[in-house]
Amino acid sequence: MFSNVHIVLVNTSHPGNIGSTARAMKTMGFKKLILVNPKEFPSEKSNALAVGCTDVLKTAKVFPSLDVAIGSSNINIGLSARTRKASIPVLSVDDCVKYVLSNNSLKYNIIFGSEASGLSNSDLLKCDYIVSIPTYKDYSSLNLSAAVQLITYELYQKSNIHKLITKKSTSYATTKEKNYFIESLIDLMNETNFMSVKNSKSLTKKIHILFNKANLESDEVNMLLGMINSIYKKLNK
Amino acid sequence: MFSNVHIVLVNTSHPGNIGSTARAMKTMGFKKLILVNPKEFPSEKSNALAVGCTDVLKTAKVFPSLDVAIGSSNINIGLSARTRKASIPVLSVDDCVKYVLSNNSLKYNIIFGSEASGLSNSDLLKCDYIVSIPTYKDYSSLNLSAAVQLITYELYQKSNIHKLITKKSTSYATTKEKNYFIESLIDLMNETNFMSVKNSKSLTKKIHILFNKANLESDEVNMLLGMINSIYKKLNK
Repeated sequence: MFSNVHIVLVNTSHPGNIGSTARAMKTMGFKKLILVNPKEFPSEKSNALAVGCTDVLKTAKVFPSLDVAIGSSNINIGLSARTRKASIPVLSVDDCVKYVLSNNSLKYNIIFGSEASGLSNSDLLKCDYIVSIPTYKDYSSLNLSAAVQLITYELYQKSNIHKLITKKSTSYATTKEKNYFIESLIDLMNETNFMSVKNSKSLTKKIHILFNKANLESDEVNMLLGMINSIYKKLNK
Repeated sequence: MFSNVHIVLVNTSHPGNIGSTARAMKTMGFKKLILVNPKEFPSEKSNALAVGCTDVLKTAKVFPSLDVAIGSSNINIGLSARTRKASIPVLSVDDCVKYVLSNNSLKYNIIFGSEASGLSNSDLLKCDYIVSIPTYKDYSSLNLSAAVQLITYELYQKSNIHKLITKKSTSYATTKEKNYFIESLIDLMNETNFMSVKNSKSLTKKIHILFNKANLESDEVNMLLGMINSIYKKLNK
């Protein structure tokens, strides 16, 4: 079940939360855990809280950076309380669930930030979508593993209703392919002086958002790269 | 918000779970916590995990037994994985949410058992309804505070959709009134030898289930007690 969905924890401070997350995942049929730069792992504290599910911890993959961690996936969904700040498309929890369940030939990452500060702005830019779990106005401090529990529960619940459909496999670009293109485009824009020190940050953001929304296929990325190459050739003529 | 809903933890072993529960509750707008016979409370461990919500712990009420704890409420909903064993009416999570949101003039208890074994059979008999959170078949060991998080989240979410309606206040019997009647009836049945050592357990269960389903009003309880009294008078004549 849910073999195409990874739960990704970024910069987790407390090893206990990694153990609780493993338990939360397994109760809902999720087994694929990715850890990006955890403060302490493996750890006795993680094992202690992963009652009956150290298998999830043993098969967890650890990466030094988010980029590498999500390279081979197709769709990245970031959890964040700060949806207004970003212009990245926002999904409700329900729509996120429908989307993930809509096509199990795609590889999804559901990405959770650190306990203290969540996902950074640069991490959010790598996300195709942002999801925010609604909380009561006076106190919004959801525990990390509690957030994982809520999202995995909603997916598990709805998976019994929406029958999983394997759509005709369109060959969506991997995150790595897509980001290689985006970096190439940014290089080019620096080259052309379209990008300056002043506008670099906001432009980078806009480019990410635009191409994340496009749900690029591999062929389309190749085409875009071909376009960039052709521009370079022309420039160097 | 949710001032008519108590979260009741019975025989909690780990004080950390009490702290995590307080946090889970507060993120979804719940503040009323009842603790029945906790192993350790108050506790440093509870406080440490109740980040920013020690107010919930400070106002928590502690009782030595479930009976006393739920005496002044109207409706008791017990969480249990063992729904098949009992013949107590079972609600899905969705139906439970609709029921609790349907009438905020009633006092609801949502009752969670101990980490190791959940609610006992005798505790379940005090419940009007049982709710079971669906989990993946291979591993159903939901953490206590994770279970509280899921139920409170569902209630909070749906409360934004179903507008809270205060129905014309029918004067539902309190749990104390109802159980006083049930005990009187059982005493009478012992008196009449309808109840024996052999059938006492199963009959007690059936009586509880029957009258819990009836959603008794105070007037009805009074009437039933009057009937019992009249029988005693006749017997002693």
